[in-house]
Amino acid sequence: MDSNTGWREQLRVIIFQVDTVAGRRFDTTLLVIILASLFIVIIDSIDSIHRHYIDFFAYIEWGFTIVFAIEYALRLYCSPKPLRYAFSFYGLVDLLAIVPGILSLYYADAQYLLIIRIIRMLRIFRVLKLSPYLKQANFLLSALRGSKQKIIVFLATVSTLVIVFGTLMYVIEGPENGYTSIPVGIYWAIVTVTTVGFGDIVPKTPAGQMLASLLMITGYSIIAVPTGIFTAELANAMRAGQLEHECPVCAKTNHENEASFCARCGNALFPKIEEQA
Amino acid sequence: MDSNTGWREQLRVIIFQVDTVAGRRFDTTLLVIILASLFIVIIDSIDSIHRHYIDFFAYIEWGFTIVFAIEYALRLYCSPKPLRYAFSFYGLVDLLAIVPGILSLYYADAQYLLIIRIIRMLRIFRVLKLSPYLKQANFLLSALRGSKQKIIVFLATVSTLVIVFGTLMYVIEGPENGYTSIPVGIYWAIVTVTTVGFGDIVPKTPAGQMLASLLMITGYSIIAVPTGIFTAELANAMRAGQLEHECPVCAKTNHENEASFCARCGNALFPKIEEQA
Amino acid sequence: MDSNTGWREQLRVIIFQVDTVAGRRFDTTLLVIILASLFIVIIDSIDSIHRHYIDFFAYIEWGFTIVFAIEYALRLYCSPKPLRYAFSFYGLVDLLAIVPGILSLYYADAQYLLIIRIIRMLRIFRVLKLSPYLKQANFLLSALRGSKQKIIVFLATVSTLVIVFGTLMYVIEGPENGYTSIPVGIYWAIVTVTTVGFGDIVPKTPAGQMLASLLMITGYSIIAVPTGIFTAELANAMRAGQLEHECPVCAKTNHENEASFCARCGNALFPKIEEQA
Amino acid sequence: MDSNTGWREQLRVIIFQVDTVAGRRFDTTLLVIILASLFIVIIDSIDSIHRHYIDFFAYIEWGFTIVFAIEYALRLYCSPKPLRYAFSFYGLVDLLAIVPGILSLYYADAQYLLIIRIIRMLRIFRVLKLSPYLKQANFLLSALRGSKQKIIVFLATVSTLVIVFGTLMYVIEGPENGYTSIPVGIYWAIVTVTTVGFGDIVPKTPAGQMLASLLMITGYSIIAVPTGIFTAELANAMRAGQLEHECPVCAKTNHENEASFCARCGNALFPKIEEQA
Repeated sequence: MDSNTGWREQLRVIIFQVDTVAGRRFDTTLLVIILASLFIVIIDSIDSIHRHYIDFFAYIEWGFTIVFAIEYALRLYCSPKPLRYAFSFYGLVDLLAIVPGILSLYYADAQYLLIIRIIRMLRIFRVLKLSPYLKQANFLLSALRGSKQKIIVFLATVSTLVIVFGTLMYVIEGPENGYTSIPVGIYWAIVTVTTVGFGDIVPKTPAGQMLASLLMITGYSIIAVPTGIFTAELANAMRAGQLEHECPVCAKTNHENEASFCARCGNALFPKIEEQA
Repeated sequence: MDSNTGWREQLRVIIFQVDTVAGRRFDTTLLVIILASLFIVIIDSIDSIHRHYIDFFAYIEWGFTIVFAIEYALRLYCSPKPLRYAFSFYGLVDLLAIVPGILSLYYADAQYLLIIRIIRMLRIFRVLKLSPYLKQANFLLSALRGSKQKIIVFLATVSTLVIVFGTLMYVIEGPENGYTSIPVGIYWAIVTVTTVGFGDIVPKTPAGQMLASLLMITGYSIIAVPTGIFTAELANAMRAGQLEHECPVCAKTNHENEASFCARCGNALFPKIEEQA
Repeated sequence: MDSNTGWREQLRVIIFQVDTVAGRRFDTTLLVIILASLFIVIIDSIDSIHRHYIDFFAYIEWGFTIVFAIEYALRLYCSPKPLRYAFSFYGLVDLLAIVPGILSLYYADAQYLLIIRIIRMLRIFRVLKLSPYLKQANFLLSALRGSKQKIIVFLATVSTLVIVFGTLMYVIEGPENGYTSIPVGIYWAIVTVTTVGFGDIVPKTPAGQMLASLLMITGYSIIAVPTGIFTAELANAMRAGQLEHECPVCAKTNHENEASFCARCGNALFPKIEEQA
Repeated sequence: MDSNTGWREQLRVIIFQVDTVAGRRFDTTLLVIILASLFIVIIDSIDSIHRHYIDFFAYIEWGFTIVFAIEYALRLYCSPKPLRYAFSFYGLVDLLAIVPGILSLYYADAQYLLIIRIIRMLRIFRVLKLSPYLKQANFLLSALRGSKQKIIVFLATVSTLVIVFGTLMYVIEGPENGYTSIPVGIYWAIVTVTTVGFGDIVPKTPAGQMLASLLMITGYSIIAVPTGIFTAELANAMRAGQLEHECPVCAKTNHENEASFCARCGNALFPKIEEQA
């Protein structure tokens, strides 16, 4: 192993792994830089600040672009399979972090570059991914996945409700009360059923108000459904399956949580001590 | 069995059943057509689109009507008891899917036909009905049914609350602040207690604002009730997704799916007949 | 027992009890009359209807007053202890049902009588009280009572939050942005923390919007608390206490739900059948 | 022990402890005074009341300041370690209760003193701290702490969602529809995802309304997450309100409060020492 490969290997450990002091320090630095670049993008959008510090922000943005470009180059350099990295999800996100700085050379006031600059945020998850929080996130995700079919049934019901009520309101209230089309009616129904209630469009006829009341009470009851599904699933996951104990007679290993006897052979799972003697 | 009956039988299997490849393909096609017709109805209601594509949409609507008419005729033809089908729930929905196209010949700009055209949507559930999602829907429905009496008590309480607060606000705030009648007051109370809060009608007097605060905090606490009922019921239903058989000795009713012996008392769940004798 | 007492006794059974056919019929009739009188009060408040049917509604109101007066007289007459009935909760509510009709002779357009007329509604609960729904209501109430202390802690926290944030917003936003006093600020904080969000008062300064965001996210998380308390309490109540089975050795009667052995004497609660033989 | 120390000790018991009649009476009096001072601060902010009773409120505020100053002096005097008290959390809060009265001598209409005057409220918790409610508060807090990691994952997800949607809305709707900067967009996204929905800023373009609908439905589903986490954790905590002792044979950890034998395996939970030998 020549010194070059050794240096590359060492760099790879720092950049891609977290179980060393240097690796953790690298991740923390990166997290701070990403958050700083995010903060700059956000406050740069405030008009009065933008006008005062226009040059300052341009220089800072250039700084971030250079830092991210160097980081991207290093990752490419020390990755064992550079191409696979380049086309992986995080490889593309890393590339996107450099693009806006370069594109902004050609397009002066490119609003849409903003979105790309915000996408940099996803890189935070790369850092979080390597932390103990991942376990908790997986826990929550597995509870969500366990109730996937129930959630699809729920969303299908809500969609139907929202389309039917949106159409009814369009017919009853009509364009003169702000329900200018069925899509607007559906938008209103979503605003209402989720209990957001902006109040930009509101029913004005008695019939419309009655229908809206019906939708609100339905929406109110429906909140119970996803909460119930998720809670029950989570409680299930937390109760952590079953009793794991080998039956002394038939060797069955999984039992009901509170089982005293094996459900297969009927023998006591935990024979009394004096009986054993 | 003459060839005609055989062909009819084959058609019936395709149209009414799902466990064949052809049947599943038929259902998928139908689902796509229904969704497309729904999409057309929705975007046709946007004024600028409607004006530009008025003829195009008219032709398309005719296309859908003809397709649904053919489908209805085929269902009638190959159904073993055509009359029973014609008067069943889905039979009527299928008929309604054709009606707006035909009626629109006589009534030029019939707004109310829209509702019938949206009812076509219910046909989606016929397709879903035959899918594995049905089991999950039944699961959720059985949890709702199990808590029916509790939900009626809850709705009666909410209704009383809403009527009493609506009347109080009408008396306190009065028509000059937008509470023009008790029904409007009740509408406001529903908007408030469900936490939708449009803001089209708001209390302006200090007394009204105090009363509104009381109602909001009540509403906030009351959200807990349906969620709690439903979650507890669902958790119960999920725990009970097991062998339901009363143990002859200790009367435990839920067991592991594969249980031979009761996990609580160790006795055989299904004693051999000669032993009982 | 002279015929008068017998007749009175029979009347008492009809009016005060529900386990006879006549009693149930009486309750149903009363329920319908109360709901009708409530409906009249509500729609009479709509100005256009009130002006058209002013005489009609006056006659109907008189009719209800006479019916309720007769009912009240009968209850007094056939009650074994008339005074105790007259001063009981429902006795007073029954009396209040007659008052508005009589008072309206003296006060022409008495708005505040409305509230008394709405209080009639409470009489519905008398009828419901005697139904199987009572058991469910008690169930829900006992779950609420079980979490009383937790709910007080929760309400104290929310009150503090709302007062502190209301004051902060009054100081930060000030009267020029609609926060005219601390009570108005508190009202706004309640509207926000309960996620009602009328939008009649909204923060306009950046500092105010940041504070509002903080309050909203807090409010959002806080919804979880009453729901969690109530659900856990309800789930507890539904798991229905414990196993009721007398221990064959020490006669202890209440055990853990899944108990196989008595927690006091350690003997099997359900001895195996072959062992018994 | 000279009489001075004895008197000081007696005072200390009254002021700092609650298990004597005098101590409880002192706490109740203090609670009433704090609530009264809070009430005065709140209603003094109402302009019409302030103008009428300006002198009256000034005198009352002086009264409260003197009472709190005397209390603070007494606490300092009878505390065994005055310096430690003075720099403890409640010592500082007690000091802050006196400050506004004194500062208002120099600053006439000092709005910001209001916040300090409201901070007095925290002193209520000192009184509550010594009550049985503390146990319930700890119970709720421990459930929250148990789900700390899950809640951080949840808040990180919501933050990302809110920043991404806020930026998208700023780009799509733009300053002409009220989304004047990314921070305003984020504020709107928080208002929407928490279902508060003030309606001061609303999407007006079709694309914005579609995005808003997506955010609302996401927000609606996301409510389920903290509720689910907290409920499952609380249910766990409540179920564990029992004897916690690992059974030496089957490792069951939760038992009836009075259990001597394990309800699962029937073995003694606390084997006699001579038997173990």
